[in-house]
Amino acid sequence: MTTKKKTTLRKPAVAKNSKESSYAKAGVDVALGNQVKSGIGAIVRPTHGAEVLGGIGGFGGLFRPDFKKRGIKDPVLVSSVDGVGTKLKIAFATDRHDTIGEDLVNHCINDIAVTGATPLFFLDYIAAAKLDPRVLKQIITGLSRACKAAGCALIGGETAQMPGLYGEGEYDLAGSITGIVDRKNLLDGSRVKVGDALVGLPANGLHTNGYSLARKVLFDLLDLKLTDRPAGLGTTLGAELLKVHRNYLPAFETLHAMKGKPLHAAAHITGGGLIDNLPRILPKGCDALINPLSWKVPAIYGIIGRGGKVDPLEMYQVFNMGIGMVLVVPGKEGISIAKKLGGRIIGEVTKGSGVVRFSPEPGK
Amino acid sequence: MTTKKKTTLRKPAVAKNSKESSYAKAGVDVALGNQVKSGIGAIVRPTHGAEVLGGIGGFGGLFRPDFKKRGIKDPVLVSSVDGVGTKLKIAFATDRHDTIGEDLVNHCINDIAVTGATPLFFLDYIAAAKLDPRVLKQIITGLSRACKAAGCALIGGETAQMPGLYGEGEYDLAGSITGIVDRKNLLDGSRVKVGDALVGLPANGLHTNGYSLARKVLFDLLDLKLTDRPAGLGTTLGAELLKVHRNYLPAFETLHAMKGKPLHAAAHITGGGLIDNLPRILPKGCDALINPLSWKVPAIYGIIGRGGKVDPLEMYQVFNMGIGMVLVVPGKEGISIAKKLGGRIIGEVTKGSGVVRFSPEPGK
Repeated sequence: MTTKKKTTLRKPAVAKNSKESSYAKAGVDVALGNQVKSGIGAIVRPTHGAEVLGGIGGFGGLFRPDFKKRGIKDPVLVSSVDGVGTKLKIAFATDRHDTIGEDLVNHCINDIAVTGATPLFFLDYIAAAKLDPRVLKQIITGLSRACKAAGCALIGGETAQMPGLYGEGEYDLAGSITGIVDRKNLLDGSRVKVGDALVGLPANGLHTNGYSLARKVLFDLLDLKLTDRPAGLGTTLGAELLKVHRNYLPAFETLHAMKGKPLHAAAHITGGGLIDNLPRILPKGCDALINPLSWKVPAIYGIIGRGGKVDPLEMYQVFNMGIGMVLVVPGKEGISIAKKLGGRIIGEVTKGSGVVRFSPEPGK
Repeated sequence: MTTKKKTTLRKPAVAKNSKESSYAKAGVDVALGNQVKSGIGAIVRPTHGAEVLGGIGGFGGLFRPDFKKRGIKDPVLVSSVDGVGTKLKIAFATDRHDTIGEDLVNHCINDIAVTGATPLFFLDYIAAAKLDPRVLKQIITGLSRACKAAGCALIGGETAQMPGLYGEGEYDLAGSITGIVDRKNLLDGSRVKVGDALVGLPANGLHTNGYSLARKVLFDLLDLKLTDRPAGLGTTLGAELLKVHRNYLPAFETLHAMKGKPLHAAAHITGGGLIDNLPRILPKGCDALINPLSWKVPAIYGIIGRGGKVDPLEMYQVFNMGIGMVLVVPGKEGISIAKKLGGRIIGEVTKGSGVVRFSPEPGK
């Protein structure tokens, strides 16, 4: 370019006079977006270790995995994407937005942990009609808190203003995680054997599944309020329903450090419950036989099941019923591993056809 | 477990009688979800090369990068997440859902290509009040088409049913990409110098930015219809607004294969336009000086700008204005590279303070 007649030196033009801008009038406030984003760096930076390259605001997040330090010879990347479902509606109603960030990160960590992977980095997607800086800060604070706790770097995110797609004060939240596992330690279900014990680890509330049914029963059918304290619950419904999805990574780290590598497989009990998630790790010719009396089902499920007259078996396909993670370990090591990890034996692997059986059958 | 009184052998219970289930009545149809997911494997499998391990339906997608074959010695992972904004509203209105999948993938590919990275894998997030199998199939077909074209594996996704959060017939679509670059080839802006040429590559329509303003002007202020053919446009508004976000990866591959590695940096012109995106790659002490007369701004922007009386400078912060990618290359190689890639020189790097200047100023 050779013409240099008149030049304009300026910071981003729209950000200066956002109220007058056409884009702001169309519902997208670039200045607000920039304001919102300006505080993010300080919140996410504590999640960045030496493997994160570059700063905030690049087009892509950069991560240089230190294979040597991680002791990984044949790296396999494991990635998963998820949202938090209509648990969001509880966050909206209670105006508390930090815990769902933790829910999302922990959900994703667990999804890759069951393959044997350790998290490397996380990216979030937040979409709303209009960004509220206060809410966004809470969400990202929660995401960062969970990432930091798990040694996972929060290296990127997208905050989208989409007028007309989301209701006022509402938003959606999703995220993706990428982790790493040495190929020889990959858990693919091939080590699962008849006679293996199923160790259930306790969940912390509903985690992030079944909220549409829970909300319908609790708030529409039973006409309860978030501040109510139904008998047996020991807390308010709001507090119960916002309990944070548990991060099971520490349990996996304990198992990986044990001699003889006792972990044969693991299933994260999310949407679909025990009934749909256990078959994902069962080899052909094996069933999972579950004794539903082997653990105490938390009170919230009694309230929902009775209140909604939900088929008892369906409860085990919608909710985690108190078991958030199932570990498959050698039968003879089951009791000691359950004790070590604060879980209990909830069943065993039997000959079968790749399905879940209950004995006794729930509700019978 | 020792009790074996009564056992129940069954496939997922809810999936059988979905109309009666409590979850279906609460707005989440597990059977529909399973039906929708069952066809996905056949659509995404063609994107899977030898580096993808495992099948469909695992908790996490598995990818074993072949560093040797890729010629990468010091791997840096580059990841990005994005959505398609309210371009979705055009997809809803035209009932065409395959192209937005391509938009999303190509947007993400470009976001990591500007760091020098090649895509490895992609994961999608689709959220709706109720899943429509026909629509979902179209979306995933588009995602797969774009992934296949770019040698990117579609290794996972989440389809979320969120009754009460999305309007009828509406959905949101987001996705994340992870790519790889050898550390020595990482483009971090440090090679940008005063005197470098800015080569602009043509965009294909609005790509995925500025749709809230475009829709407001075109449909609210000008009262146009998707089937209208405004003078100069050469096509219908619907076709213009659904033009697929261009994938610039082939241009990057050409540049990476050239002797002397002429590519100093690149900026993907997305939300924020030239004004906000070029500063992301400018080192301290440099400006980007743009001659807005050096390329022909497509007709759609004249229609939007005049129709909405949008400040001419704001147009360059909301829309790509016909330039979807800016490459920073040595000044003396600018013309030949522009010619080779079908682009043109739109400006140069000058001394300055990290901002974009226009000469002449748009609209003056």
